[in-house]
Amino acid sequence: MNQKGKLYVVGIGPGAYEQMTVKAVRALEKSQVIVGYTVYAQLVREHFPEKEYVTTPMRQEKERCQMALDLVKKGKIVSMVCSGDSGVYGMSSLIFQLAGEESFDIEAVPGVTAALGGGALLGAPLGHDFAVISLSDLLTPMEIIEKRLRAAAQADFVICLYNPASKKRADYLKWACDVVLSLRGPETVCGWVKNIGREGETMEVLTLKELKDLEADMFTTVFIGSSNTKNIQGRMITPRGYRNV
Amino acid sequence: MNQKGKLYVVGIGPGAYEQMTVKAVRALEKSQVIVGYTVYAQLVREHFPEKEYVTTPMRQEKERCQMALDLVKKGKIVSMVCSGDSGVYGMSSLIFQLAGEESFDIEAVPGVTAALGGGALLGAPLGHDFAVISLSDLLTPMEIIEKRLRAAAQADFVICLYNPASKKRADYLKWACDVVLSLRGPETVCGWVKNIGREGETMEVLTLKELKDLEADMFTTVFIGSSNTKNIQGRMITPRGYRNV
Repeated sequence: MNQKGKLYVVGIGPGAYEQMTVKAVRALEKSQVIVGYTVYAQLVREHFPEKEYVTTPMRQEKERCQMALDLVKKGKIVSMVCSGDSGVYGMSSLIFQLAGEESFDIEAVPGVTAALGGGALLGAPLGHDFAVISLSDLLTPMEIIEKRLRAAAQADFVICLYNPASKKRADYLKWACDVVLSLRGPETVCGWVKNIGREGETMEVLTLKELKDLEADMFTTVFIGSSNTKNIQGRMITPRGYRNV
Repeated sequence: MNQKGKLYVVGIGPGAYEQMTVKAVRALEKSQVIVGYTVYAQLVREHFPEKEYVTTPMRQEKERCQMALDLVKKGKIVSMVCSGDSGVYGMSSLIFQLAGEESFDIEAVPGVTAALGGGALLGAPLGHDFAVISLSDLLTPMEIIEKRLRAAAQADFVICLYNPASKKRADYLKWACDVVLSLRGPETVCGWVKNIGREGETMEVLTLKELKDLEADMFTTVFIGSSNTKNIQGRMITPRGYRNV
């Protein structure tokens, strides 16, 4: 009889090895096969060169998840790696949907998502209530994205934007800034981070009207402050409440 | 001349050692003094017993931060530990505010906040856009909390509630559920987790109308699904978009 397979859905954090949790490291150590999008699998391979790797290009998420489940069916211990957290726009919801009623042994291993990793580099933008919104309209109608941007801006949430742009969506961030600018002041404190924890890591704290001109890419995470967010010595800081420190 | 002090503001994750990042472990290893709220300092002490510890009871956040900065001024390498992430309702915003214009060497080390740690236990509730709201009115007027609850419910965000209750605020979660129930259906898929990664870890996936009767405490994290969130085999799953898998 085969050994019983197991699937870890592992958030590896923003990219650097040391941003992984100890639990993620242990899951990867225990795994026989590591499945993932080519770029993230490569980041892991540097530290676990002896594993078997199964990689797929971008956008083939469903195929990638199915491959991981098929390996588990064959009795393999498998880690499916995701950047950031495995749950936040990650693979774990798709894995659980595809697994359906079949009884797989699946464990989601959380990780440092870009909102947290990027936030720490900028200062403390997420010190109070915040909303996370993806600008990707690949799976979501634009009307829903716009409704959420408006609601978050109106209720004075700090807003963290994932997938602010891609080659096909070059002007989405500018559009999102205009939506927010219709409800918030142009001097609202904002920030962005590119390539968190990787080569080419860059960041900036700036105003909402300046953010409009940012050339974002798919490795950029954007933060729009609440009315209470401050620029303190070049850092983006949202106090923990509305009363004085 | 003294050595140059440094302050790490370290998110230690939900509580278990293995939920810390490798970077957090290394920061603690490098530190001479560890400062924190008694409960979290105790969690760390088990793994780093040889360090010097400076602890303060709950609610003395400002004093705790000032103590950490004073130690850094004396040339010490200090880690200030926070549960979860150091930025999400964490100590790093207060640290940066108190440091002000003084040139301290401060590094925020991100960690797995309860939304991510709890989410992984429940399934994948944060697979799509979400809002994080604290129900604590210690530093925030209730009108702002209510406005954000309404906005998030109306725009169909998944909502993650921090600090859903305390001894003094026993009925806040019930109130919040009523606010959301005025805008969302009673069968909305919800979930809660208590004592993530610690002794007494419990969780449940249930409906919004059932959530109203939960006796939450300060170690509970609550998730209210979007209209798209599903209960799949007892797990709380929010798909990554609105089109079919």
